[in-house]
Amino acid sequence: MDNETFRRYGHEFVDWLADYFENVEKYPVKPGLTPGDILSKIPLSPPKTGEDMDHIFKDFKEVIMPGITHWQHPGWFAYFPANNSPPSVLAEMLTAGLGAQCMIWQTSPAAAELEERMMEWLRDMIGLPSGMAGVIQDTASTATLCALLTAREVKTDFRTNEEGNSGDLRVYASAETHSSIEKGVKIAGYGKENLVYIDTDENFAMIPSLLEEAIDIDIKNGKIPACVVGTLGTTSSMGMDPLEEIGSICQKYNIWLHVDAAYAGTAALVTEFRGFMKGAEMADSFVFNPHKWMLTNFDCSAYFVKDAAALIRTFEIHPEYLKTTTDHKVKNYRDWGIQLGRRFRALKLWFVIRSYGLEGLQQMVKNHVNLTRQFRELLESDTRLEILAPVQLTLVCFRYNPGGMAEETLSEVNRKLLEKVNASGEVFLTHTSLKGRYAIRLSVGQRNTGIGQINKAWELISQHAGD
Amino acid sequence: MDNETFRRYGHEFVDWLADYFENVEKYPVKPGLTPGDILSKIPLSPPKTGEDMDHIFKDFKEVIMPGITHWQHPGWFAYFPANNSPPSVLAEMLTAGLGAQCMIWQTSPAAAELEERMMEWLRDMIGLPSGMAGVIQDTASTATLCALLTAREVKTDFRTNEEGNSGDLRVYASAETHSSIEKGVKIAGYGKENLVYIDTDENFAMIPSLLEEAIDIDIKNGKIPACVVGTLGTTSSMGMDPLEEIGSICQKYNIWLHVDAAYAGTAALVTEFRGFMKGAEMADSFVFNPHKWMLTNFDCSAYFVKDAAALIRTFEIHPEYLKTTTDHKVKNYRDWGIQLGRRFRALKLWFVIRSYGLEGLQQMVKNHVNLTRQFRELLESDTRLEILAPVQLTLVCFRYNPGGMAEETLSEVNRKLLEKVNASGEVFLTHTSLKGRYAIRLSVGQRNTGIGQINKAWELISQHAGD
Repeated sequence: MDNETFRRYGHEFVDWLADYFENVEKYPVKPGLTPGDILSKIPLSPPKTGEDMDHIFKDFKEVIMPGITHWQHPGWFAYFPANNSPPSVLAEMLTAGLGAQCMIWQTSPAAAELEERMMEWLRDMIGLPSGMAGVIQDTASTATLCALLTAREVKTDFRTNEEGNSGDLRVYASAETHSSIEKGVKIAGYGKENLVYIDTDENFAMIPSLLEEAIDIDIKNGKIPACVVGTLGTTSSMGMDPLEEIGSICQKYNIWLHVDAAYAGTAALVTEFRGFMKGAEMADSFVFNPHKWMLTNFDCSAYFVKDAAALIRTFEIHPEYLKTTTDHKVKNYRDWGIQLGRRFRALKLWFVIRSYGLEGLQQMVKNHVNLTRQFRELLESDTRLEILAPVQLTLVCFRYNPGGMAEETLSEVNRKLLEKVNASGEVFLTHTSLKGRYAIRLSVGQRNTGIGQINKAWELISQHAGD
Repeated sequence: MDNETFRRYGHEFVDWLADYFENVEKYPVKPGLTPGDILSKIPLSPPKTGEDMDHIFKDFKEVIMPGITHWQHPGWFAYFPANNSPPSVLAEMLTAGLGAQCMIWQTSPAAAELEERMMEWLRDMIGLPSGMAGVIQDTASTATLCALLTAREVKTDFRTNEEGNSGDLRVYASAETHSSIEKGVKIAGYGKENLVYIDTDENFAMIPSLLEEAIDIDIKNGKIPACVVGTLGTTSSMGMDPLEEIGSICQKYNIWLHVDAAYAGTAALVTEFRGFMKGAEMADSFVFNPHKWMLTNFDCSAYFVKDAAALIRTFEIHPEYLKTTTDHKVKNYRDWGIQLGRRFRALKLWFVIRSYGLEGLQQMVKNHVNLTRQFRELLESDTRLEILAPVQLTLVCFRYNPGGMAEETLSEVNRKLLEKVNASGEVFLTHTSLKGRYAIRLSVGQRNTGIGQINKAWELISQHAGD
């Protein structure tokens, strides 16, 4: 494809995208498909000779689009938000066009230095200590894995990298922690048996006294406490672990404290919502995802550490073909994580933060929190609906419970309710389990979600609850 | 930013990108900057209120662009190619605009099913066995880590995930293997001491008899051979490990064979160049990067496995909030790797393969191999230049060696030669070390590289060699 053809289709695609942003609400949030529907429409073999873009773009619209789940639909209340924004998409266009590989400073100095500054901006914006240094990771799963690995090395004086795992290192997290902790514990070779789940209180927050008990028992049994993962905003219910108390325990026992604030971290942009961050200054590492709730295209996960040298020492490798004369003066981010290859991801952060300004981003957060409160009030007005967890920030967990139903029946009834609500195509909510109870989750965070979608969700729930 | 503003800037950006593709050769390949130059131009704090896109785009052009290393410059001969293409950039625009999170089938059925089919296309295109299943990873580093983890679990009957590493598992790779192997071995908790480097022959290929010796010694010492990493196209010199012999050894001792063909894999598109793949059918896992040399924007690393069930069993996690009614019928790719969150990366592969067709991609490979041969002939015509490794596919390793210089002087002279050649801004080459000798590397693979750039590189080398 020559440059003029690119120019022509580029313009066509921009118009299509602008129309998509304008009309996304007209699509069903979640497509009504059965597995294999799309696959059956894609040929078994690649074409021998090139096809023209008219044909490919037509297939995109006719074959792919009917199978897209619309994360940018204003009726998106499922899982967590992954909101993008026009300035972020514009930046992604430039990133794709430049096609720069940002593994080390020399392979794109502007990318490395912009990343450094953007991480400083973000750190200050959410109130983390000024001594922390940051790096962009792809996901919180990866960032948490980096934390578990660094904790492992620090605790063993960097011997595990050399000698392998001892099998005695222990990791602690709340029973409500994200699945990526278990995954990371396995990958890093701790062994799942060495992941200790600490019970939570009625607010789904870790109980610090139980954490300390578990640590004491482990030490008595010759185990080595290496890492505690505190969660700010659990996936199921937005539970907030009490970091101040957990941090004190970590300091007392010299344990690495990693904080997973993947979704909720964005709320810390607003001072009045920042209460949950109390104690975050004790974290050795901290992750939050601008790609979730800060208008920045996936992937962009912000990972902060107090001791960057420990992080680098965990990952650095110095093959001859990657050595440069500036190595001692610059940040080579390939040593700050797992992957060698890295995209120019700082650019979209720069575009987003500058386009909206701090106040614009704060306004978005306030708006979503406000909408969530309005949804909660609607729920509270109907005695058939039961709220199952404290409503924090932008997540409401609830179920239909008219009274007199057995737990099992309640699960089944609510599963059906959720199905009916989602079948509308106008909203999409998901579910979880809270202390054994089936809960419907409504998570607010899509950029264009407004009171109209909140009312629509309520209307559908209210109507089908009566069926 | 409203949709109409997006539309306006979208068009402006498309024109800028088309102009960039047209004029990229006018930029210096590598900027002449000192560390901190860009950083000093970016404010210490984010703006309070939003700025308009005119201002941001102006800064992009004036602050960021002077600090970009131009990987898409036709004078790019450094490291490895990371070539993109107009259809790939167009697809990235759509991926960014849709902003779909492709962690499981339900969160984007079209993405999951297109990924499945694209991996089948790629597998067939490079001649891997039809039984292999594929998944897109971000990088070969990650894919190799997945291989090391699966090998670890298979060898310990999935007990390491539960109990942690034993410290007895061994990994083998050639002395010329990529640094990501060491990194992965550390991350997975094997311990670097358990990574055994096998010496290479004069072609920088692993010597199979030494591999078998090392395995025998390890077994005698109570160690457990778990994984052999074979490389097709080493980073330093494009060395090709003899997979047939290595594969037989792996089968004899029941060891997982992972093949890293990150760069060279693309050459297997052309049947006449596919000789190096002999034995690849014995691999348990295989990785190559369409984002290197197949016109597909980073990131897009194709990872293939024979036993997908083992891969999934290594990574799967089933939290309640991710369960869906279709789980048993579909591919949920979050269980095929480390990250939970995933971008819609299959789309760009679909656009690229269809736009160029198999023959168009083959033509690109042939063209680059041909240009490399022409460069080799130029080198061979000058007795002052010495070729330091067999020229395979698209990589030439050489040095200036007029005779009579000590090794140390030669290193210094060639370091200076490389510096002078790169200072031209017209080409960019990098270096490596081959059996202790400093080598300049010229790697051909940028989409628009032609005989003009080959001649220019030669002219600069030839001229400065005389200095």
